[in-house]
Amino acid sequence: MKSNNTVGESVTRWDAYAKVTGRANYTADIPTKTKLYASIVRATITHGYVKNFDFSEALEVEGVIKILTYEDMPKNKFSTAGHPYGLDPATRDRYDRNILTNHVRLYGDEIAVVIATNELASRIAASKVKVEYDELPFYLTPKEALSKDAVLIHEDLDSNILKHTTSSVGDIKKGFDESDFIFTDNFKVPIQQHCHLESQIACAYKGDDNRWIVISSTQIPHILRRILGEAFGIRWSSFRVIKPFIGGGFGNKQDVTIEPLCVACSMAMNGQPVQIALSKEESIAYTRTRHEMEYSAKMGISKDGIIKALDIEVLSNKGAYASHTHAVGIKGGGMLLSLYDIPNFRYDIKTVYTNIATAGAMRGYGIPQVMFFIESFMENIARKMGFNSFEFRQKNIIKNHSYNPLNQVTQESVKLQECMDLAKKIFCYEDKLKQCKNYKHNYKKRGIGMANFSYTTGVYPKGLEIASARAILNQDASIKLMLGATEIGQGSDTVLAQIAAEVLTIPYESVIVDSITDTDTAPFDTGSYASRQSYVSGEAVKRAAIDLKNKIIKSAAKFKELDSNELILSNSKIINTNGDFIMSLEEVALNSMYNWQKAEILVGEGSYNCHNNSYSFGTCLAYVEVDCESGKVKILDILNVHDSGRILNPLLASSQVEGGMGMAIPYALSEELKYDKFGKVLNNNLLDYKVPTAMDLPDLNSAFVENYDPYGPFGNKSLGEPPMCLPAPAIRNAIVNALNIEINEIPITPEKIFNLKAKSCIN
Amino acid sequence: MKSNNTVGESVTRWDAYAKVTGRANYTADIPTKTKLYASIVRATITHGYVKNFDFSEALEVEGVIKILTYEDMPKNKFSTAGHPYGLDPATRDRYDRNILTNHVRLYGDEIAVVIATNELASRIAASKVKVEYDELPFYLTPKEALSKDAVLIHEDLDSNILKHTTSSVGDIKKGFDESDFIFTDNFKVPIQQHCHLESQIACAYKGDDNRWIVISSTQIPHILRRILGEAFGIRWSSFRVIKPFIGGGFGNKQDVTIEPLCVACSMAMNGQPVQIALSKEESIAYTRTRHEMEYSAKMGISKDGIIKALDIEVLSNKGAYASHTHAVGIKGGGMLLSLYDIPNFRYDIKTVYTNIATAGAMRGYGIPQVMFFIESFMENIARKMGFNSFEFRQKNIIKNHSYNPLNQVTQESVKLQECMDLAKKIFCYEDKLKQCKNYKHNYKKRGIGMANFSYTTGVYPKGLEIASARAILNQDASIKLMLGATEIGQGSDTVLAQIAAEVLTIPYESVIVDSITDTDTAPFDTGSYASRQSYVSGEAVKRAAIDLKNKIIKSAAKFKELDSNELILSNSKIINTNGDFIMSLEEVALNSMYNWQKAEILVGEGSYNCHNNSYSFGTCLAYVEVDCESGKVKILDILNVHDSGRILNPLLASSQVEGGMGMAIPYALSEELKYDKFGKVLNNNLLDYKVPTAMDLPDLNSAFVENYDPYGPFGNKSLGEPPMCLPAPAIRNAIVNALNIEINEIPITPEKIFNLKAKSCIN
Repeated sequence: MKSNNTVGESVTRWDAYAKVTGRANYTADIPTKTKLYASIVRATITHGYVKNFDFSEALEVEGVIKILTYEDMPKNKFSTAGHPYGLDPATRDRYDRNILTNHVRLYGDEIAVVIATNELASRIAASKVKVEYDELPFYLTPKEALSKDAVLIHEDLDSNILKHTTSSVGDIKKGFDESDFIFTDNFKVPIQQHCHLESQIACAYKGDDNRWIVISSTQIPHILRRILGEAFGIRWSSFRVIKPFIGGGFGNKQDVTIEPLCVACSMAMNGQPVQIALSKEESIAYTRTRHEMEYSAKMGISKDGIIKALDIEVLSNKGAYASHTHAVGIKGGGMLLSLYDIPNFRYDIKTVYTNIATAGAMRGYGIPQVMFFIESFMENIARKMGFNSFEFRQKNIIKNHSYNPLNQVTQESVKLQECMDLAKKIFCYEDKLKQCKNYKHNYKKRGIGMANFSYTTGVYPKGLEIASARAILNQDASIKLMLGATEIGQGSDTVLAQIAAEVLTIPYESVIVDSITDTDTAPFDTGSYASRQSYVSGEAVKRAAIDLKNKIIKSAAKFKELDSNELILSNSKIINTNGDFIMSLEEVALNSMYNWQKAEILVGEGSYNCHNNSYSFGTCLAYVEVDCESGKVKILDILNVHDSGRILNPLLASSQVEGGMGMAIPYALSEELKYDKFGKVLNNNLLDYKVPTAMDLPDLNSAFVENYDPYGPFGNKSLGEPPMCLPAPAIRNAIVNALNIEINEIPITPEKIFNLKAKSCIN
Repeated sequence: MKSNNTVGESVTRWDAYAKVTGRANYTADIPTKTKLYASIVRATITHGYVKNFDFSEALEVEGVIKILTYEDMPKNKFSTAGHPYGLDPATRDRYDRNILTNHVRLYGDEIAVVIATNELASRIAASKVKVEYDELPFYLTPKEALSKDAVLIHEDLDSNILKHTTSSVGDIKKGFDESDFIFTDNFKVPIQQHCHLESQIACAYKGDDNRWIVISSTQIPHILRRILGEAFGIRWSSFRVIKPFIGGGFGNKQDVTIEPLCVACSMAMNGQPVQIALSKEESIAYTRTRHEMEYSAKMGISKDGIIKALDIEVLSNKGAYASHTHAVGIKGGGMLLSLYDIPNFRYDIKTVYTNIATAGAMRGYGIPQVMFFIESFMENIARKMGFNSFEFRQKNIIKNHSYNPLNQVTQESVKLQECMDLAKKIFCYEDKLKQCKNYKHNYKKRGIGMANFSYTTGVYPKGLEIASARAILNQDASIKLMLGATEIGQGSDTVLAQIAAEVLTIPYESVIVDSITDTDTAPFDTGSYASRQSYVSGEAVKRAAIDLKNKIIKSAAKFKELDSNELILSNSKIINTNGDFIMSLEEVALNSMYNWQKAEILVGEGSYNCHNNSYSFGTCLAYVEVDCESGKVKILDILNVHDSGRILNPLLASSQVEGGMGMAIPYALSEELKYDKFGKVLNNNLLDYKVPTAMDLPDLNSAFVENYDPYGPFGNKSLGEPPMCLPAPAIRNAIVNALNIEINEIPITPEKIFNLKAKSCIN
């Protein structure tokens, strides 16, 4: 029976063997005929205009075939954001870029492209292109870009503000009037880079039917197809996007970066395959980043610790192009109201164009920022008011069935209190608190910190949620599960196969999935982002499987001339309501194809337009030791406890949490994309941009408060991004606890701690 | 309006551009990683056992990696025939072979395989394998194989008769008793080879999920998948068959020839891609052929020319393996009763194993043979009884609504008389008859001949007929049409796209089809054979399109909050019953994906288990000039007139007829696969096996008696194979007419005519 109830089991990833043995095919592995290679010519100024190109030296490089510039590109503006299309233009992202530009908006902006017979030649030639520029002043921060006389980075706007919104709930003035205490504080979070192992890569060529095939390492095959259509101003179905295995994305591949240029190159070569593969340096410096944000906040509290009002002003550093426009920034405001009960609330945010790399989607989509802000702020206030960290939060966390007026959803499975309780228990919180107090060392201090979070599942009602799936019955009672959902390493193919197996009562091993998503044939799905796949695509898979199951039962009834209402599919068998065996699923399958009189091919289709959003919650506890002499922070213990509803695959779930914590810990302590004063990235490689190795990370502990959300297909809620939202503020709070000094900016590098010269460190 | 009513129009093939420009990808063009090459070691005796191999010299060839023999292969017996599986084992073909054999049953039998890094090395090494044999007597003809002391070619049978059946209708004795005249005669037809341009080729490798991917030039992807499962004795879904563009098949690729061996080679190489590509010589000599058949017949006729009885005995030369078993031979008997009204009938046929290449499916599937026999016999009798060719046939042809007791079907759209009438008219038959009579030349004679035929559409009720299709609506109101039907050059993709376009009222150009059939994702369909695709798969496509159309209308109703019963899809628009515009199809499509509240992905599925069989009919007229000195026959004029129901694409239809005539003319005059007395093929190449060039063929004329068959999806009936069934007897009858001598065997080569020393030629 075991293998027929696969949801909730730690089945092995279907792609484990292919990945471990190296058989898995990534974009670079997909063979094509006579491939050409293109490299991007990047601007060497930070803001200005291209006056003139000199290609003479570049064209002398052996193997160079052609150089294309802005002039050779279609003139349609488009957005690179991996958001589903909106029928209402007001819901769309800002269309602010072309495939190449003569208006340079950041150092490294894309001004030309060299096509050559080999990659090295294209790169050498790209470096030999000489460019004359008209330079303009540039701005690396929102504050600079908002200065009175700042020139416009995008000429069609009145200022460098891409978008400015204010969201309110209740009466903010009244809230402060009713408060006993008012606290103000400022917080800042840095630019983080995804650093997926596989850099952006795409290959485009003309297919048999004169349409354009684009093989790409993308999180959003169907969206990419549409954006290509928009960029070229031709029928969207002129493009066929193929997504092979992906070596990580984390949101960076939720943007369309190189694909339109890749197609333009192939078009210039009469449809020959052209590949663009960004170097690690290009990927780090010139693709998308996590938004740098600055928070100025004011909180009103009653004397018994109840939040009365919260007023926040945020500056979000957008970089040179709109990408996801204002969405990443605005999301944070809404989430706060589903973490704490804040009756009077104002969230004012400006997303501001600057002359640095464009910020886009990154695991957590604005929430790691806002959680760092709120959980640091909460901690500061708890400290000032003399509350215990847990106690203060417990007074204010939202309850089950609470409605979020900004996000317009009601939560029906909130287990945040339970997460806090479980975290305390597993972590032996009280013991560790005592250990901290009792710890005596000349220059090392210990501290403990906690943080909560809440996170959405998908984008409803802020955006479209649609997914579809298809289940095809094979002769041997296996099924081919066709997915629009995009496996990018997170294991969604495995979990979705479990869902199909569960519904169809077949072993997990009997579900065939594919590493390749092909927009021509794969069911429509908007892609991998917003931790939506097991929740939205999972429901589509469930529906496809149920549709197939119903057809199987009907066919069995037809073959055996019985009433389908009296038949059940159970354990790969058709039985009747008395439990008598009628026929095996394999017999049904064989008959569906080979019964001369009654054959009928059985395919299940599932489509799901999701109108729910179930939030995940959780608590992190971190126990740290700060070396005041070196400034180094050592994490002695760390634990994420998650309420993600029902856990579909415990092994994959804990892997997700580990991965998220592995990105969140350096967000707290080390990672930051840094610019020199001219706007050039200083640490564009993995030697200088410090991604932690396994040696740098502590043991990563996770636990789950299992729960059954009424809207998830199997009670499940988001888990892909949530783990990223917790550790940074918990670690920060632990450091604050250790040093007894408030640090409101991450990363808390050794340098920063050293420069604090904290009193507590002076023995 | 034109482009929205595409059925019946001569739209351009969707793949025309890809084929003309060379962009079309055939199996050899599909790039794979690090491909290895395998060549077959073939027996150099005609019957016997392998005693011993000596691989020493072969293994010394640089690049050779491995040699596999019978011992290395799975021991499951299988059939190579591209027939759908039968749930009843009695309906299955005979499973009489393994992947390699140590029992050599024909010269060239497959006894080992050499895997090397390059094709040349594998071929050289294969030629250097030394083999010791125990030889057995061999038999090249059924008569030899049936001799009293013949050794068994397949040890598990009692004789070399693979199958012997006798079909009867009425009372044959009574029929002859009632006859005024009784005629007997013998006829013989030769072995013909398909000579498709692209020889058999396949490449197999292990996929990401440890299943086996087989890229193959096959007519039967889904059947191939099943046969691989049977050959290896593992789950059928362990295989994924991918069919790219195909350079012709004509039935030869309705057999599974090299694919199991190809997979076995890849298995031996740990899943690395291994390609087997037969040389033209191998393809001609060692794959499948058209059955050689001998007919001994007796016909009873009333004095007014009415057929009373027909008794036929047939010997069918099977060659070494069963392949399609008895089906090709037995089909002929049934067809005769749907051409002429024969009240008393006996058809006795033996399919006999011999030691030559295995006969299998070839365009016409036994009917070119039987039509040659019957139409030659009819002509001989007409001549003897003094009837005009047309007059004699008109007395005996079946009428509409006639029931065929052997085939158990009733025809509802018989237009054979109309075909005869139209043929006579277009051909100016009476004028040409006079010309023949009046033609005077020292050594050239002219003659005119005619022949009729009937032909099935698909295989019902003798076998399973099932097809399915899928239509996916894209954002821009194009559709992706997913087909299980197999395009092998005949244009089925184009015609099926026309059907979908017609139903969905969209331009033909808005239907996207694919050169590739992938058994993982393509709807189940048994493949390309039996002229079934536009009739059976066409109905599946129609159903998928109707299913999608209904969903489109329902969605439009949902979006506009209207009653779907009052909406119509017309000319790519939703209108109401008053003709008022409601919304465009593109708006429906965009809403189906992007309407935040009401999105629902629209996919149409169609499945069709066909329980009809509508026969096609037709008449050929040939006008020839025989050069008695050289023996050469010149075709002065030739015309095929077909009743194929409604013509879906006149351009493709006439191309089909031309192609079929181009194969049938040399069947009459030149083509024959010849063996030396040791059983070795003499003419295994295109220099010696005379396929006509364009210069060798006359103008090929065709006409259609359009008709609307009640069972075809758009009134259509078979057309792929029918053109092959007509010209040979018509040409033969014209030669007989010219020379006034009965020739009962084809090909009628110059040599044969020369050796006749016909009296009529002696002036």
